[in-house]
Amino acid sequence: MKFYDCSTAPSPRRVRIFIAEKGLDIPTVQVDLRNGEHLSDTFRALNPWCTVPVLELDDGTAISEAVAVCRYLEDAHPEPPLMGVDARDRAVVAMWEHRFEIDGFLGVTEAFRNAAKGLKGRALTGPEGAAQIPELVQRGRARVESFFSALDAQLAHHPFVAGERYTIADITAQAAVDFAGWIKMSLPAECRRAAEWYRRVSQRPSAAA
Amino acid sequence: MKFYDCSTAPSPRRVRIFIAEKGLDIPTVQVDLRNGEHLSDTFRALNPWCTVPVLELDDGTAISEAVAVCRYLEDAHPEPPLMGVDARDRAVVAMWEHRFEIDGFLGVTEAFRNAAKGLKGRALTGPEGAAQIPELVQRGRARVESFFSALDAQLAHHPFVAGERYTIADITAQAAVDFAGWIKMSLPAECRRAAEWYRRVSQRPSAAA
Repeated sequence: MKFYDCSTAPSPRRVRIFIAEKGLDIPTVQVDLRNGEHLSDTFRALNPWCTVPVLELDDGTAISEAVAVCRYLEDAHPEPPLMGVDARDRAVVAMWEHRFEIDGFLGVTEAFRNAAKGLKGRALTGPEGAAQIPELVQRGRARVESFFSALDAQLAHHPFVAGERYTIADITAQAAVDFAGWIKMSLPAECRRAAEWYRRVSQRPSAAA
Repeated sequence: MKFYDCSTAPSPRRVRIFIAEKGLDIPTVQVDLRNGEHLSDTFRALNPWCTVPVLELDDGTAISEAVAVCRYLEDAHPEPPLMGVDARDRAVVAMWEHRFEIDGFLGVTEAFRNAAKGLKGRALTGPEGAAQIPELVQRGRARVESFFSALDAQLAHHPFVAGERYTIADITAQAAVDFAGWIKMSLPAECRRAAEWYRRVSQRPSAAA
């Protein structure tokens, strides 16, 4: 197995945290996003979407998309379970993970990529790129505010996003909260339960990943 | 179990096809999206994201997000497998499902919701809504074109999106191709392998769901 990462990028960070929580040690290749290595022919042959993370399996299969990489690692290394323990729990975890990816992670992405000077013409990931649209900066920020509120509301009922256990849903939310720092947003003062959760998850050794 | 559906809507259609492929018969409630029933207090208590599909379990747990509902059904009713058969296969299926949701299904959604007269102020799903942004119509269409090309390229290697078997990745792609009809886009003539695949999956009894 080989893990294609970029140590400064938020998307592969979701997988880095997942790997750390599993206690795995996977040979890692750094992809130089800043200098466009992900758009090179070599990398494109591995992942036509030109994104990290990618997990290359020993048979040469390249798995891209953070949630799919985690799916592989969960099945190949079930302990500790990070994607649920029974049918109901797995569905609850998948629901929160997906929802917080869309509202949280992709909300920050929208606000960031449509404003960053270095990403003109690259407001969407992928080989084609896309022009920046200034209105999306505010829309992205509004999505992140909704994400913060929803996160806080959900943590009124449970110690972790999807219930009693730390899961991939926490990882996605945690990575989104950290990524929000890139657009100078942080959990607002009134989100006290989310702030307490954030302190807790940030103290786990995996948060350094 | 109870399935909250809207028989004319593309997003719950992904789950309707999944249910049909599993041969399940689940009591179904129609939610009247046209008249805003999904924004009512009653529905919001079930699903604060105000979206269908939702699967309500017998213990009252409400699962939203199409992929999470399918996750539950796959685990509770493993045959026939629609989300992969081993660790590698499950990851490949998850990768294509996620990628084609983002590029295909959400690409059409972007083009459609930012143009439809009846969706002013509701360009994003969810309780808060969002203003329409005209530039996103063209961007959404460009994403769908990329999706069509990627689908065609992938089907050069395999009879189905994720390999030798029909899976949830086919369902998401199939629902996205059909949904593209709402924005008057269809598989271009040069995508012959995708067109052949589309004919095949559309002939399955589940396509009527």
